[in-house]
Amino acid sequence: MNLSSKLLSDAVNEFAGLPGIGKKTALRLVLHLLKQDASKVSSFADSLTKLRQEAIYCKQCFNLSDKEVCDICSSSARNKDQICVVADLRDIIAIENTSQYNGLYHVLGGIISPMDGIGPSDLNIDSLVTRIKEDNTKEIILALKGSMEGDTTAFYIYRKLKDFECMISIIARGISIGDELEYADEISLGRSIMQRTPFENTLKG
Amino acid sequence: MNLSSKLLSDAVNEFAGLPGIGKKTALRLVLHLLKQDASKVSSFADSLTKLRQEAIYCKQCFNLSDKEVCDICSSSARNKDQICVVADLRDIIAIENTSQYNGLYHVLGGIISPMDGIGPSDLNIDSLVTRIKEDNTKEIILALKGSMEGDTTAFYIYRKLKDFECMISIIARGISIGDELEYADEISLGRSIMQRTPFENTLKG
Repeated sequence: MNLSSKLLSDAVNEFAGLPGIGKKTALRLVLHLLKQDASKVSSFADSLTKLRQEAIYCKQCFNLSDKEVCDICSSSARNKDQICVVADLRDIIAIENTSQYNGLYHVLGGIISPMDGIGPSDLNIDSLVTRIKEDNTKEIILALKGSMEGDTTAFYIYRKLKDFECMISIIARGISIGDELEYADEISLGRSIMQRTPFENTLKG
Repeated sequence: MNLSSKLLSDAVNEFAGLPGIGKKTALRLVLHLLKQDASKVSSFADSLTKLRQEAIYCKQCFNLSDKEVCDICSSSARNKDQICVVADLRDIIAIENTSQYNGLYHVLGGIISPMDGIGPSDLNIDSLVTRIKEDNTKEIILALKGSMEGDTTAFYIYRKLKDFECMISIIARGISIGDELEYADEISLGRSIMQRTPFENTLKG
């Protein structure tokens, strides 16, 4: 694509570097921004740099936060006896949108995937164990993707935790195998949290 | 969508304000940026503010440019006897990609569309007339969208220019009626420039 302006082609290339954005879409977005007020474009640009520079991860649950401890962890309205283990912070957003869960979370930061070179030590699993030990958590809900990697991760965590006195449950497979949690519809996802089953039950048969 | 961080929701909202980007896509893009180096994110943000603040439009053809007169207008290799009239600078990019045209351009900045409240005075038509008068341009090629608005605009320009000694042609309707120029394939678009017909021929029948 021959662009008449270096400024234009710089901006288009930056957009085209984002996942799922091709050159033509990038050009359309850039030309849209070009028609906006300069102040609007600055606020767009600022929100990105600010996010990248100032955002921190909650030291308890590893959710993205503006503070050291996130709003969910510090809320007195949440049930501190439950921790829902998720791969990604997008999964927290998806579960929060169902309004079916009132406990805490723990973000692993991915799932065990030998193909991508992600082992247990790359994930926030040790901190989960420490947290359960210190807080005497009563229930762990594993809300991971229904795939081989998700099941492996669930099983790994189950083995790490089975000697503790907390119950380990797994969200009901109301969502189809292979689906990403974030794209599941809210009713199915909500139901799969409500109907969670003890992890041990899934090992039989 | 309940987001745990104000910084995060600010950035997501900014992205979701772009055309064709929903909240979920915005979140995916923002989380992608969050995983990049801070310097990469800054360069992304900078390219946008810089483009908006520093980009100027060529004072001759109204193409987006880094200089007062764009590279096409100032190039000695281009045929200065021809001016191709387009609605949008995206159309210039599309035509340049065909490598079938070596003249100059003139960007109208839209087409006449009473429904959207765009009249002839909102477009760069007077400057086109002045330019043709001053430069003794030999041929005007109307490369506008094949729609009622495109035809109206072509006819309006034709009437303004018919007393001049320049030939007025219109790109061949090799591209289907209603198609946006920028999405046409390069071969059809290139052919429609090669096989342009005098505008008067299109008025018969």
